[in-house]
Amino acid sequence: MPIDDPIPLSLSGERLSAVYRIQAADEDAALACARDICLEQTVEFPDALIPNAAIRDQIVGAVVGIAAAGAGAWDVTIRYPVEAAGGELTQLVNLLFGNVALQPGVRLMDFRLPEGMLAGCRGPRFGIAGLRERLGVHDRPLLCTALKPMGLSPRALAALAYALALGGIDLIKDDHGLADQPFCPFDERVARCAEAVQRANRETGRHCLYLPNVTAPTHLVQARARAARDAGAGGLLFCPGLAGLDTMRLLAADDGLGLPVLSHPAFIGGLAVSPTAGLSHAVLYGRLNRLAGADAAIFPHLGGRFTFTADDCRSIHASCTDAMAGLAPIFPVPAGGMRLARVRELCDFYGREVMLLIGGDLHALAPGEDLIQRCRRFVALAGAGGG
Amino acid sequence: MPIDDPIPLSLSGERLSAVYRIQAADEDAALACARDICLEQTVEFPDALIPNAAIRDQIVGAVVGIAAAGAGAWDVTIRYPVEAAGGELTQLVNLLFGNVALQPGVRLMDFRLPEGMLAGCRGPRFGIAGLRERLGVHDRPLLCTALKPMGLSPRALAALAYALALGGIDLIKDDHGLADQPFCPFDERVARCAEAVQRANRETGRHCLYLPNVTAPTHLVQARARAARDAGAGGLLFCPGLAGLDTMRLLAADDGLGLPVLSHPAFIGGLAVSPTAGLSHAVLYGRLNRLAGADAAIFPHLGGRFTFTADDCRSIHASCTDAMAGLAPIFPVPAGGMRLARVRELCDFYGREVMLLIGGDLHALAPGEDLIQRCRRFVALAGAGGG
Repeated sequence: MPIDDPIPLSLSGERLSAVYRIQAADEDAALACARDICLEQTVEFPDALIPNAAIRDQIVGAVVGIAAAGAGAWDVTIRYPVEAAGGELTQLVNLLFGNVALQPGVRLMDFRLPEGMLAGCRGPRFGIAGLRERLGVHDRPLLCTALKPMGLSPRALAALAYALALGGIDLIKDDHGLADQPFCPFDERVARCAEAVQRANRETGRHCLYLPNVTAPTHLVQARARAARDAGAGGLLFCPGLAGLDTMRLLAADDGLGLPVLSHPAFIGGLAVSPTAGLSHAVLYGRLNRLAGADAAIFPHLGGRFTFTADDCRSIHASCTDAMAGLAPIFPVPAGGMRLARVRELCDFYGREVMLLIGGDLHALAPGEDLIQRCRRFVALAGAGGG
Repeated sequence: MPIDDPIPLSLSGERLSAVYRIQAADEDAALACARDICLEQTVEFPDALIPNAAIRDQIVGAVVGIAAAGAGAWDVTIRYPVEAAGGELTQLVNLLFGNVALQPGVRLMDFRLPEGMLAGCRGPRFGIAGLRERLGVHDRPLLCTALKPMGLSPRALAALAYALALGGIDLIKDDHGLADQPFCPFDERVARCAEAVQRANRETGRHCLYLPNVTAPTHLVQARARAARDAGAGGLLFCPGLAGLDTMRLLAADDGLGLPVLSHPAFIGGLAVSPTAGLSHAVLYGRLNRLAGADAAIFPHLGGRFTFTADDCRSIHASCTDAMAGLAPIFPVPAGGMRLARVRELCDFYGREVMLLIGGDLHALAPGEDLIQRCRRFVALAGAGGG
């Protein structure tokens, strides 16, 4: 049905681009799949029914490149008009991968945006340089740990936070499972833990940051973040998969807060699990986190409790730190069962610009060792391995 | 490190339960994996380091059942304390599947909650019965279509909406790629399309609903929803994967809005793609949508542009309509390339309590046919097949 639209389309011609890895029998089949993606992600309409040439020329994605990517796989580059994203992160994600997410055999490997395309996405407020400045730590990897386990009272967690800060940890985050449970209410936990870390800082002269978990129902996120800041928290932990990628952007962009944001992959991490579908590790952990303003991105390093490969981890490191539409580089935060015994190896793998997150193993005290001493060992290992 | 917590844990003992399908070499390996899940999803701490018995007994998940589920797979049932979810949907999702999402070989198949466990989750406001009441359609499947393609102006989309409503469609939604693009601004589109559908309703005496897409940056969702209602929209389209599951809950629970919500699986649908990881179709399309208040859930039916199986679709139908913690049943909305030629088959598959969504094929006019006539054919087919 041809439609003579009374308002003819007239877009700028500016494009963003995305690379999809397509599993297919041969290059022709990969190209056919790519052309389907061009339609699916824009007009979601059969090509033959597109009502006018302007839409076909200006809205529908265009395949601009194809390259073999191993046996039975091709990397296809598709360009989309920037206007299709409407200047919003939510619609950009939809344009890049909304419906294609439901399709096995297609994986979004990477994307490139013109600088400043999303006015609301100013990216990381701190990034690597800003976090180092705030912490006053310039010569070694940053060190992070989590307050856990769930089930401890705010008093007990605050006692832990005090010891961890005395021991020289740089960033102490809530475990991401600490929300506002009756056995550990948010307000009490945050007040006690922030006070404990500030007390330790007064004793050490250091600038350890406490990052409460503000992953919460949508209508409560802002209030928790402000309560955290008012209580003296030095940053925020947030799970965009649980409470929204754009909500993280909003936290990061909030000048009234002005706090660093550490992103945790709970739930959304499932989108990178299949190697032939979903999002690449680079997109999930690097690109989307940077766009949404995270200053550091947690992910499971190889050889821990999860099954990431060395290539996965390298791609995350690259996508956190490479040039990206004018956005600041951010810390990759390898985690998921890391141990003190692997600190040297982690430093060799990532270099100095990394945040090391060790949780449980910091509590696996050697005979005669206390928690403060063990933290100091962590600091010494990171200084030796990453300095 | 044993910690004598000054505030001893004392939970109610009330539990929720989850079933995970675990790929493993044998039952012992499946059980070992299940015990890891019990820790991972709660304390995220090595068992040996859990600081006191109360946490081990009351917080850590407990395996309460295991059953073979085909070659190399076992379904394991785990119970968690309701308090661990803290009464919040965001933390419930984290408890059920936060970190496990990152793990291949584990799939969340289903879960059961005690009734009223999440005070903020009142579930679907309308559900099947309420939507039928609002539409005045009781004797056949509901019929839905989308305003598309992207690239048409608000005027052109409103002309389409008018014809579709005259033709007897029950629900006309924005295509989920229509956001607030410069070539089709939200406010103008919604005003024009709502007016067009109301005008058609005055002519037909029917109660066709227009559902604008209010998937948007977090700080704009409420304003768009209110603008939509004020313009006369009869419901809302929302993509929880793009703008947050809890944000959908908030829209559905908003008494000041009081509008039905249609859920679209863009992006989040990727979590169900791998058959051995992620979320089952039942959890993703049924359980989470009902918890978060959707009145109808869109998903790709088999044989369309996506690769769902008959079993996938049956499980979605069941999880949308079965007994679930006192929440109203909702409409399954099979879609993704459905055609008029398949309406009878769809009615046979789902029975009468289904919402059929046909987009592009409604515009594939037969010789001499116009859009209004084609819509009437859709209505007649659904009446004949589903009555």
